[in-house]
Amino acid sequence: MSRASAVPSERTRVKRLPERGCYDRAAIDAVLDAMPLAHVAYVLDGAPIVTPTLQWREGDHVYWHGSAASRMLEAAEDAPVCMAVTLMDGLVLARSAFHHSVNYRSVMLMGRAAKVADPAEKELRLRNFVDGLFAGRWDMLRPANRQELKATTVLTMPITEASAKLRAGPPKDDDEDYALPIWAGVLPIRLTVGQPIDDPRNKPGLKPPAHVTGFSIG
Amino acid sequence: MSRASAVPSERTRVKRLPERGCYDRAAIDAVLDAMPLAHVAYVLDGAPIVTPTLQWREGDHVYWHGSAASRMLEAAEDAPVCMAVTLMDGLVLARSAFHHSVNYRSVMLMGRAAKVADPAEKELRLRNFVDGLFAGRWDMLRPANRQELKATTVLTMPITEASAKLRAGPPKDDDEDYALPIWAGVLPIRLTVGQPIDDPRNKPGLKPPAHVTGFSIG
Repeated sequence: MSRASAVPSERTRVKRLPERGCYDRAAIDAVLDAMPLAHVAYVLDGAPIVTPTLQWREGDHVYWHGSAASRMLEAAEDAPVCMAVTLMDGLVLARSAFHHSVNYRSVMLMGRAAKVADPAEKELRLRNFVDGLFAGRWDMLRPANRQELKATTVLTMPITEASAKLRAGPPKDDDEDYALPIWAGVLPIRLTVGQPIDDPRNKPGLKPPAHVTGFSIG
Repeated sequence: MSRASAVPSERTRVKRLPERGCYDRAAIDAVLDAMPLAHVAYVLDGAPIVTPTLQWREGDHVYWHGSAASRMLEAAEDAPVCMAVTLMDGLVLARSAFHHSVNYRSVMLMGRAAKVADPAEKELRLRNFVDGLFAGRWDMLRPANRQELKATTVLTMPITEASAKLRAGPPKDDDEDYALPIWAGVLPIRLTVGQPIDDPRNKPGLKPPAHVTGFSIG
């Protein structure tokens, strides 16, 4: 699949600590593909509003979904939105408060949201969402029905105005502070997947499929 | 410490799946205190913008900080902002795509951001931020200097217009779908803290203090 390059706009150009900024599509896609949790911001009655949701990427677009009755998703159609996807990889402890930091991988996308209007495309996108997390699951499920599809809004935005911002590695202290006898370093943080918990109402003998036992995130 | 009650406004009232909504300050504070990572949304030139940052709570206020040169923090002063704090606790696999879900703890706060203008208060807030994560660390560090404090903006917002939204437990499927031989259940996800990584430039013999080895999150 060919990748368009993401072009930083004046708005997405990383201005604070620009050495951490990155506009490479491979770097942007890697963050989007590692972390389904996103925070999407809208403007509602002139005020910002941000909510957590799951995103998924297909080629040069991101998608997210929600209730067709959501006031935010309604307001988002053809309106400016901003999506942030963040992985916190560690806390960085330095020799001065000022140089404490966070190791992270993050992406910011800006654009206008569009609804996926065509029912067949909507169903395909939702299938790709489910199968992107849990390969092959869609075909194992009770099929989606018309009411469920109608009750679900899928929004999309092209990955054009985008940036990734990354920090890794040890603290960067002021030169003279390295002489101080203060412990500095990194506390790594990661997302861990636990053992699957069977629904107590599962039919007897059902075992979690490979897309559950082999699941990873982050 | 007495806690004001948070009052849901028309904006923060949980409308989708209202049984998941909660306006109890203890529930709101528990989420804020469990997760320093926040996403804060602003309106900049009419468009929403959301960025990750760390938040900390003191009593009835949340605080966050950044570079004094940040265009977003500048725009935020006395302007409407929205903060979301989210812990993803698990993925919920149901017998239909529609009932797949996420177990999570989340808080949404809305309000107007105010700068902490007084330098002494600003230093106190930053001390509480550092010590809130790593008890006793501030006094172990090379003291903050005037330039560092000047280069740092601290913003605050009262916890008044706020809601928590929580989901836990197994999937909730349609009654007739429980008869299907489809594995359903929960994949638990949590944040894990790894072994501290010493800065290679630490003075010989330094060991990580208790606020590092005993650190927990989530």
